[in-house]
Amino acid sequence: MDDGADVVSTLHKSRRELLPNIIGSTEETTTGLVRLRAMARDGALAFPVMAVNDALTKHLFDNRYGTGQSTMDGIVRATNYLIAGKKIVVVGYGWCSRGIAMRAKGLGGNVIVTEINPLKALEAVMDGFRVMPMLQAAREGDIFVSATGNKHVIDEHHMEVMKDGVLLANSGHFDIEVNKVALRALSVAEPQRVRPFVDQYTLKDGRKLNLLGEGRLINLAAAEGHPASVMDMSFAGQAMAAKYLLDNKGKLANQVYTIPEEVDQEIARIKLASMGIGIDTLTDEQYTYLNSWEEGT
Amino acid sequence: MDDGADVVSTLHKSRRELLPNIIGSTEETTTGLVRLRAMARDGALAFPVMAVNDALTKHLFDNRYGTGQSTMDGIVRATNYLIAGKKIVVVGYGWCSRGIAMRAKGLGGNVIVTEINPLKALEAVMDGFRVMPMLQAAREGDIFVSATGNKHVIDEHHMEVMKDGVLLANSGHFDIEVNKVALRALSVAEPQRVRPFVDQYTLKDGRKLNLLGEGRLINLAAAEGHPASVMDMSFAGQAMAAKYLLDNKGKLANQVYTIPEEVDQEIARIKLASMGIGIDTLTDEQYTYLNSWEEGT
Amino acid sequence: MDDGADVVSTLHKSRRELLPNIIGSTEETTTGLVRLRAMARDGALAFPVMAVNDALTKHLFDNRYGTGQSTMDGIVRATNYLIAGKKIVVVGYGWCSRGIAMRAKGLGGNVIVTEINPLKALEAVMDGFRVMPMLQAAREGDIFVSATGNKHVIDEHHMEVMKDGVLLANSGHFDIEVNKVALRALSVAEPQRVRPFVDQYTLKDGRKLNLLGEGRLINLAAAEGHPASVMDMSFAGQAMAAKYLLDNKGKLANQVYTIPEEVDQEIARIKLASMGIGIDTLTDEQYTYLNSWEEGT
Amino acid sequence: MDDGADVVSTLHKSRRELLPNIIGSTEETTTGLVRLRAMARDGALAFPVMAVNDALTKHLFDNRYGTGQSTMDGIVRATNYLIAGKKIVVVGYGWCSRGIAMRAKGLGGNVIVTEINPLKALEAVMDGFRVMPMLQAAREGDIFVSATGNKHVIDEHHMEVMKDGVLLANSGHFDIEVNKVALRALSVAEPQRVRPFVDQYTLKDGRKLNLLGEGRLINLAAAEGHPASVMDMSFAGQAMAAKYLLDNKGKLANQVYTIPEEVDQEIARIKLASMGIGIDTLTDEQYTYLNSWEEGT
Repeated sequence: MDDGADVVSTLHKSRRELLPNIIGSTEETTTGLVRLRAMARDGALAFPVMAVNDALTKHLFDNRYGTGQSTMDGIVRATNYLIAGKKIVVVGYGWCSRGIAMRAKGLGGNVIVTEINPLKALEAVMDGFRVMPMLQAAREGDIFVSATGNKHVIDEHHMEVMKDGVLLANSGHFDIEVNKVALRALSVAEPQRVRPFVDQYTLKDGRKLNLLGEGRLINLAAAEGHPASVMDMSFAGQAMAAKYLLDNKGKLANQVYTIPEEVDQEIARIKLASMGIGIDTLTDEQYTYLNSWEEGT
Repeated sequence: MDDGADVVSTLHKSRRELLPNIIGSTEETTTGLVRLRAMARDGALAFPVMAVNDALTKHLFDNRYGTGQSTMDGIVRATNYLIAGKKIVVVGYGWCSRGIAMRAKGLGGNVIVTEINPLKALEAVMDGFRVMPMLQAAREGDIFVSATGNKHVIDEHHMEVMKDGVLLANSGHFDIEVNKVALRALSVAEPQRVRPFVDQYTLKDGRKLNLLGEGRLINLAAAEGHPASVMDMSFAGQAMAAKYLLDNKGKLANQVYTIPEEVDQEIARIKLASMGIGIDTLTDEQYTYLNSWEEGT
Repeated sequence: MDDGADVVSTLHKSRRELLPNIIGSTEETTTGLVRLRAMARDGALAFPVMAVNDALTKHLFDNRYGTGQSTMDGIVRATNYLIAGKKIVVVGYGWCSRGIAMRAKGLGGNVIVTEINPLKALEAVMDGFRVMPMLQAAREGDIFVSATGNKHVIDEHHMEVMKDGVLLANSGHFDIEVNKVALRALSVAEPQRVRPFVDQYTLKDGRKLNLLGEGRLINLAAAEGHPASVMDMSFAGQAMAAKYLLDNKGKLANQVYTIPEEVDQEIARIKLASMGIGIDTLTDEQYTYLNSWEEGT
Repeated sequence: MDDGADVVSTLHKSRRELLPNIIGSTEETTTGLVRLRAMARDGALAFPVMAVNDALTKHLFDNRYGTGQSTMDGIVRATNYLIAGKKIVVVGYGWCSRGIAMRAKGLGGNVIVTEINPLKALEAVMDGFRVMPMLQAAREGDIFVSATGNKHVIDEHHMEVMKDGVLLANSGHFDIEVNKVALRALSVAEPQRVRPFVDQYTLKDGRKLNLLGEGRLINLAAAEGHPASVMDMSFAGQAMAAKYLLDNKGKLANQVYTIPEEVDQEIARIKLASMGIGIDTLTDEQYTYLNSWEEGT
């Protein structure tokens, strides 16, 4: 069971002697899947992988509601900032970052979204957020949060135009979303740790930029990660995926596989039941109607 | 270019002599696709169909933001009701109905969602709505809105427990989501048209239920349908789909095809440009990073 | 019973012979009270006035929820615009305008607020809106809505910098919030009525500005005004105020009087009961606690 | 400078010899003002008090945005619960509690409000929340938060009907809003501290109720209290109030005084400037218009 493809990557790079014994792996994160799919594309993957992250019961819930709440929680714990009235720049509008945008708005923040994908950018616009290039957002933001799975999305030329006193936080898997090397290079000295999890970099022009949690996942660095009541669904997916790998041992190619829809439905059904929430079922009349093309106006 | 599979259905049922001349069709709605996929499954479809509705630039925008606003607009125009403080029961949590739920909440309504799909039900719960079986929601709601593509989702046994004075509206393609036959049968007489688009049914126990727009799509019946600024994306999809059918004449099976992703991206890009909104592009460093599995922590 | 002090103003200006017979008047709007208080200050008021608008059951509800919904309703009926993704500039952050801001946001708009009062401006900021001077907002907005009770809040120098195609709407009592004379003077010709309630002014530089409902109250011009379910509380206040004037005939000075708190409480109590909503009452223990300063930690 | 009237109360009860030397005091909280006004009513107050809490720059901001965020922050830090999808019962709809309701909703919670004041109850309804008597809410809630300044608002008969596993939190000044004596009496034993700040009471029927932070102010117990960026305005009010007492030494009665409006405006003006936010000022034409009753339609 892997998170960020860290184990798989290590196995393929430096412990290749272990590869033959491995039936398969399960991957928890978007970041990990980006790497694993690149490996599969290159023919470098040595066993099948179940994309637990792609289960709807995982990424629709864990990434959105879990990351959303816990990221803002991490920022508040690190700084005790009031979010209301602040301009929050959310880098990306994938499932994690839209969770962050939703919660930052819910706490009274004024949210700006940056994206590279025009479809997601348009959704952000229609959801009431401002969308603009990062270089422009960099001039306006009070708090910056990245969750893209990509590298240096908060980079040197952005830092050069930021306001004095801003916060820089990351909620993506690796600590490379904020370019820390560039941040240090722009600074006059090593940063001051002004509060636990807050490193203040003084730039040559006197501005101070505050990096939270050393640019690592802020919800793990400064808070407690995802609440149990959202991780339970991810872990259900992990368990079901491991069982699937075992049940299908020898039948799967060295590719990345998605979780079957019935598994997703079953996890959601159990979760609802645990919350005491009932839903409807199709009547026979409705089932027949949906499967017929002859009825209608 | 079809909407609700009405033309395709008519052609297959009563004008079969025209079928040989048809290169293909394009379908605008969820409801139509349900029918067309049932036809394809039965081997009854006589030409290829492009699922314009499934384009992300269609259903993420038209269904969600267009139907959301225009449905609430239709209800307000029909009744001049204040939405704030009302309990709105939204039947379904697909793209259309989550648009309706979002806007009903945005107008100060207290929203209850009903669903048959446990995953969608769970999303509704996490989005802050109450979810319950329709029979229970029927006792609480002030305003009922369906958008399911299904039949009789507001049925006789629900009407039997509703409060006096409720509104019944539909925003699905066909006027069968509210069981009008049952509603008439429960009533003492033909309904009174108390305002344009409001038919008041007096039940045998004295309660009055108000059916809006005769149970037809309320955003078309009582308002002006979707705003132009969201239909433009759907129509762009229609145009691109028609071109695709022509370009691939003779090469496609009699199946339902999705719109290629590049077409979706292109439509979104043009739309953003028309709004004067810029986004970012990947740097070379980022492109390389995303396509490599060897870099990382 | 007056609205905007129109009757009172006419009586004082041109029908002074009627003044001796008048016991008092009741005023429904903020705009009217501004005028009546100026009259009282000048010693010009010839009879007592009950400020119905200042009843909490009036301005907290009618101004906020009524004007909020019906103003956006008027704009949508006049234009069939999609609000999601638009930048809405709300001029003012009084009760009416914060209702409008709340609903514009609820419909997916991105709201900018302008104010002259620093306290209200700060509330708007903390509520997640951007606040800026009108001249700056004028460059950004897609839709402008004023509800200030003041004059020329959307003025010539603002129009000079607006984007092509913007909408100008007013929801204040008089049609002087948008400077129509300046708008006409900036234009090459009389406006074109491109839809009912939409007058398109073509400026000398080719930009087109669309004035809705001739700058009159857009919720009355293009929609149906406030919903009945919010006016009922205002009218209850009117009725109670009229009774109060009669009961206290001869005892009141020629001033503006507020509605007694018990009347407000009684109206709210009846309204809740009509909605089937119960609330709590103080226990004896709690009543004693609240009235004692000797108990406590 | 007092908070909760604790110092003033102690002075009047047990250190009366100090009273003659006191010029006056300033009070920070709603709870304190309830007590001080009861003292003034009884003629028991020995010096003038400035009601800093009643400054608009205090209670509109500190109570609403400060308490709102920090209360939810305290609950999340104490429990690491996911708020999305939970039913949050907010006891009261004063400035503090509406801040809590707003933020609980913003985090994806489904909020129920209880009140004793019909006007506030009606506002909560119109803001989209469900309002019901506490005994009914007690059966539904997952998380209970009180902020009323009153005693035993979460009482024995409520606890008797609560679901297994609920959280009980308080954000009012004193730890008497949750009836802790009754909670202990309903339990089989002393509570278990299952996490820091979480005391789990096992009831005789097996249900477990979790009291957070021993029923003390949860934002102080489990989080860091109000963010500095909202306390700055309260402290500005404190400083101005102290200066006012000194400037008016000997001229004030032993009553509770409100902060003059100009002071409020000045604090807001400085705060906006510190955030780099500009607002508009009245033009001469507008000033004249607002002070004249002769202009108009």
